[in-house]
Amino acid sequence: MSEDALVIFTPSGKRARFALGTPVLQAARSLGVDLDSVCGGRGICSKCQITPGYGEFPKHGVTVEPGALSEWNAVEERYNRVRGLAEGRRLGCQAKVMGDVVIDVPPESQVHKQVIRKSATEREIAMDPATRSCFIEVEQPDMHIPTGDFERVRRALQEQWQIETAEADLTILSKLQTVLRKGEWQATVVLNKGNHDAAHSILDIFPGYTETPLYGLAIDLGSTTIAGHLCDLTSGRVLASSGLMNPQIRFGEDLMSRVSYAMMNPGGDREMTRAVREAINSLVLTIAGEAGISAAQIYELVIVFNPVMHHLFLGIDPVELGQAPFALATSDSLSLNARDLDLVAMNHNARVYILPCIAGHVGADAAAVALSEEPGKSKDMVLIVDVGTNAEILLGNEKRVLACSSPTGPAFEGAQISSGQRAAPGAIERIEIDPLSKEPRFRVIGVEAWSDEPGFAEGIEQTGITGICGSGIIEAVAEMRMAGLVDASGLIGGPEQTGTPRCEPRGRTFSYLIHDASQTGGPRITVTQGDIRAIQLAKSALYAGARLLMDEMGVEKVDRVTLAGAFGAHISAKHAMVLGMIPDVPLDHVTSAGNAAGTGARIALLNRAARDQIEATVHQIHKVETAIEPRFQEHFVNASAIPNAAEPFPELAKIVTLPDVSFNTGGSGSDTPRRRRRG
Amino acid sequence: MSEDALVIFTPSGKRARFALGTPVLQAARSLGVDLDSVCGGRGICSKCQITPGYGEFPKHGVTVEPGALSEWNAVEERYNRVRGLAEGRRLGCQAKVMGDVVIDVPPESQVHKQVIRKSATEREIAMDPATRSCFIEVEQPDMHIPTGDFERVRRALQEQWQIETAEADLTILSKLQTVLRKGEWQATVVLNKGNHDAAHSILDIFPGYTETPLYGLAIDLGSTTIAGHLCDLTSGRVLASSGLMNPQIRFGEDLMSRVSYAMMNPGGDREMTRAVREAINSLVLTIAGEAGISAAQIYELVIVFNPVMHHLFLGIDPVELGQAPFALATSDSLSLNARDLDLVAMNHNARVYILPCIAGHVGADAAAVALSEEPGKSKDMVLIVDVGTNAEILLGNEKRVLACSSPTGPAFEGAQISSGQRAAPGAIERIEIDPLSKEPRFRVIGVEAWSDEPGFAEGIEQTGITGICGSGIIEAVAEMRMAGLVDASGLIGGPEQTGTPRCEPRGRTFSYLIHDASQTGGPRITVTQGDIRAIQLAKSALYAGARLLMDEMGVEKVDRVTLAGAFGAHISAKHAMVLGMIPDVPLDHVTSAGNAAGTGARIALLNRAARDQIEATVHQIHKVETAIEPRFQEHFVNASAIPNAAEPFPELAKIVTLPDVSFNTGGSGSDTPRRRRRG
Repeated sequence: MSEDALVIFTPSGKRARFALGTPVLQAARSLGVDLDSVCGGRGICSKCQITPGYGEFPKHGVTVEPGALSEWNAVEERYNRVRGLAEGRRLGCQAKVMGDVVIDVPPESQVHKQVIRKSATEREIAMDPATRSCFIEVEQPDMHIPTGDFERVRRALQEQWQIETAEADLTILSKLQTVLRKGEWQATVVLNKGNHDAAHSILDIFPGYTETPLYGLAIDLGSTTIAGHLCDLTSGRVLASSGLMNPQIRFGEDLMSRVSYAMMNPGGDREMTRAVREAINSLVLTIAGEAGISAAQIYELVIVFNPVMHHLFLGIDPVELGQAPFALATSDSLSLNARDLDLVAMNHNARVYILPCIAGHVGADAAAVALSEEPGKSKDMVLIVDVGTNAEILLGNEKRVLACSSPTGPAFEGAQISSGQRAAPGAIERIEIDPLSKEPRFRVIGVEAWSDEPGFAEGIEQTGITGICGSGIIEAVAEMRMAGLVDASGLIGGPEQTGTPRCEPRGRTFSYLIHDASQTGGPRITVTQGDIRAIQLAKSALYAGARLLMDEMGVEKVDRVTLAGAFGAHISAKHAMVLGMIPDVPLDHVTSAGNAAGTGARIALLNRAARDQIEATVHQIHKVETAIEPRFQEHFVNASAIPNAAEPFPELAKIVTLPDVSFNTGGSGSDTPRRRRRG
Repeated sequence: MSEDALVIFTPSGKRARFALGTPVLQAARSLGVDLDSVCGGRGICSKCQITPGYGEFPKHGVTVEPGALSEWNAVEERYNRVRGLAEGRRLGCQAKVMGDVVIDVPPESQVHKQVIRKSATEREIAMDPATRSCFIEVEQPDMHIPTGDFERVRRALQEQWQIETAEADLTILSKLQTVLRKGEWQATVVLNKGNHDAAHSILDIFPGYTETPLYGLAIDLGSTTIAGHLCDLTSGRVLASSGLMNPQIRFGEDLMSRVSYAMMNPGGDREMTRAVREAINSLVLTIAGEAGISAAQIYELVIVFNPVMHHLFLGIDPVELGQAPFALATSDSLSLNARDLDLVAMNHNARVYILPCIAGHVGADAAAVALSEEPGKSKDMVLIVDVGTNAEILLGNEKRVLACSSPTGPAFEGAQISSGQRAAPGAIERIEIDPLSKEPRFRVIGVEAWSDEPGFAEGIEQTGITGICGSGIIEAVAEMRMAGLVDASGLIGGPEQTGTPRCEPRGRTFSYLIHDASQTGGPRITVTQGDIRAIQLAKSALYAGARLLMDEMGVEKVDRVTLAGAFGAHISAKHAMVLGMIPDVPLDHVTSAGNAAGTGARIALLNRAARDQIEATVHQIHKVETAIEPRFQEHFVNASAIPNAAEPFPELAKIVTLPDVSFNTGGSGSDTPRRRRRG
């Protein structure tokens, strides 16, 4: 009779022969099969549950006999009695191999279980969080070998978890002795290893085997909004998402006005630091409240932001970021104590991980987009545009990745637009203009029906029609261009030129009336010549940045465009292309990645290897500085035309024919938009 | 003509041939000659000054020609003009070898200059402080290589000082950019490397080459007193010493009463933690004031203490130290942020280094004594006794070192003695009793003359005669035994038995009157039977601890005794031996080491290698637990006799013959002293 047996694990397919009597967990570990265990095989944690398969497995060429695993032992009996084992399940640490067997590892028993992203691209995140629990058995103190309790905890972590150096704060040392004795020399330790160079920190310790929930928060700290996702660090599940306005807005709408505020007002940087840290504390409490958890169970925070937000959050005056050579105070990733950042709402020992910055204008948010969208793994040439008050732009493929940022200003977010507003119920978000009648139809947020459909009047009773949001204004301008109401230079035609009274004179220029609610006390919603100019400025900056990267890369076209940013998710690809916001590509090659920066933060929260990856990747991303490249200005001027004064848009031409109108009568309306300052 | 030349360094004697044109500093470095340089050879810091010798050097077999070093260059000219170079001196980084030469490195140019200890043993401390300054030249930012300023500082430290990983706090990051630009990309960095495993921390940064003073504080935190020495971390000089009472005294006089206080009063440990940390803050301010420096220039603190003080200082409830197995919460050395310990009086980034503990009853203070007295390097068998409220005892030689602690109680410090007081002006510190007349003569602190000498009456007009201090009571009891006023069991004889009316009845026992100042409103200073019992308890505990170590070591006698502790310095060896406090050795083999624990702390402050040494040494010291050794009790009972009921004191017998008196009349005065609880 054979002394060993064949063990085949599914779904991995890993297989090998093992001596009879080998516990399944041990077999899995020796093969590198992903089978979880928190208690280290002591039959306590039940994380290593497996499902043995019996009978014929022609695919594997094996027949599994009923006695292929050892009988239930006392540990499994007790576990089943007390907590219940699902039908067909065994504890991997107790069941021993007694014959050829096929062992299935169910998803919930995998450490690196896959979490489905809810985004368009549906990429998975493998669980490997920087913060996790370990169960340990600690040697009892011996008067004759007088090591401290902490030194014995450290040794347990070395011997039982191969964690070479673990550090503990005074708050841990001060409760260590009580916890160890209460748990009768067994304890569950919450550990964090922030980045590659960091030692493991003990963030918390509980008596015995404690299934304590561990939560983490991924935050995308933008110039205008702060968005947070609360994640379960064991399952990877998002428990709650919440956002709030960045309170620094009161010091300046865009980045450069905040840098100026810091320069002009002594202590202004500290005011802004205080404001944003308070906002994050309040976000932590809000999101914990929404999820119904205690904020003290949040052990780690991952934050991504642009360099100015990065510096202000860390308490560093951003003045150097306002002038060449745009030197960052620090560019590498950081792993910090939350309390040193005055983030006191979370666990007292919570850690903060900050992704590395790529350059003085290309921050940790761009790094997070790179982590989420992985341009460096793309076979074709992909352009990724994270649209916000400042646009981060990445271009590349597996050979080379370039990055820049471009100061689009807040127009894409509906700010500095005459009827502009944030994306909220009542805002016009979609619009179509009939090319013949020049009449608009539109849809407002919160109402399903279009304005010319039944049910619309009832729908807006709740919301009203209050303004136009960012995606609405882009559609409006593009539709006006397609309907011949705006010419290639961006001029709005008069009522005679366009044949519609909706083109109303306004001073020496014209506005297009979308909706007049003034008779019922509401606003007159129009697109003014100034609005068109603001959109032209923003889209020119965006396009010029992308085009500059294409120059640097030496390509005349890109294969794919990914629109990222919360706003990117709502932009219509066709309208963006009509405006010339993005380079010409087949429409179905434009996709949205949702809040890619936020997703990147979430990946870094849930997967430690991803931190190593992005820390290495940022050094390979070549940064192009728009502020000093003379060609940027050239591209910017060309891009102010709709779609572009110099470049053909052949893919666009296949689907849309833009009217060849010109409303320039030599008046002052033809003033060319001037480049805005960075922001 | 030879292309190279012989260079001989004195005092080291190191020599080698170097290519002509080699700077002297470079030659010194390649030979490992101890020649300082803070600026890395840029002619800025002038730390590398050397004195070339010219003419015949028969001892070295070399003749040095006038042109053996290069002419003064512009850097030396400028340095001499601006700051002045002493006659015959050159800057080692500028002067180049042009022929055979003898180069003397003066003490002030050595990094590891020797600092003479002011103690009895006069051992030297080599300077190698954990906190030091480095001058660096930092690469300027380049828009095309977008690393952060901090990352370039880190690279400068790597390349210019071989410091692999340097960490910086947010307070450093927030001022980094301003400092680097002000110093035109040169900076002086204050670095600390707390212990072997720690990375270098940047504690401060100054623009350009800044000669900033760096100070450190060595603190011996005792149960009763806290003593601090403020040291210059560059020269090693002690600038000021100061002390204060441990405010924890109000929670309990000895260690065990403080442990009890923590056990009986919820939050009591935190009260004591707060009290001692406040005391250290106040000591920092006092000592900085005395030295006339800013407390913000104190960058490091080294503290030694017994385990209970250790835990209370760190904010750890000491309850486990009050019961077997006396488990420490942590035993290894610690390197912490001062501000995490609420020590806010020093520099904001100051570090605290805590020596390792040997065991639950043998703390970092005993480790510091081991570091200072180095029993493990002794060829003969040395017993080291650190006398305080709790005695730390070390016994060993280069083969093996043992340690224990023993609860002597505060009697040796003058507490729990009827006329006892702290060592202060007015306290009787020396006493002699005439064996025939039984009359005493004594000396008080603050007065030079003995009580029977001219000038005494005038002297005490200032001080009064207020009580007996710790060393005084030891002498008094020993003198009473030598004068036949006390018998071997510790009983005081009555006036008839002793023939002196100074032996006065006091209840059912007798007291010996030393001085009666009651007619002038002063105290009647007596030694009561209770005082004798208190001293017997203390000295029995001390002797029994020492004897237990001798048992464990397997020796019947020791070669040398070192008395340490502030009080140890004042104990008369002869009187200590008459009392049987210490084992019998030739009197001239008893020495005092002064405050050896404080000296150990100072060594650890000034020499980083000493930290490695003691961290390794503590694991080799074998700890003996007095609390559980049955023989301790036996030794304790024997030692309650004066000098000892069971053991001969042959060396003592050579110089003193103790009267064979016995005053035991079967009364209650013969109660055997009972062992006190630990404290």
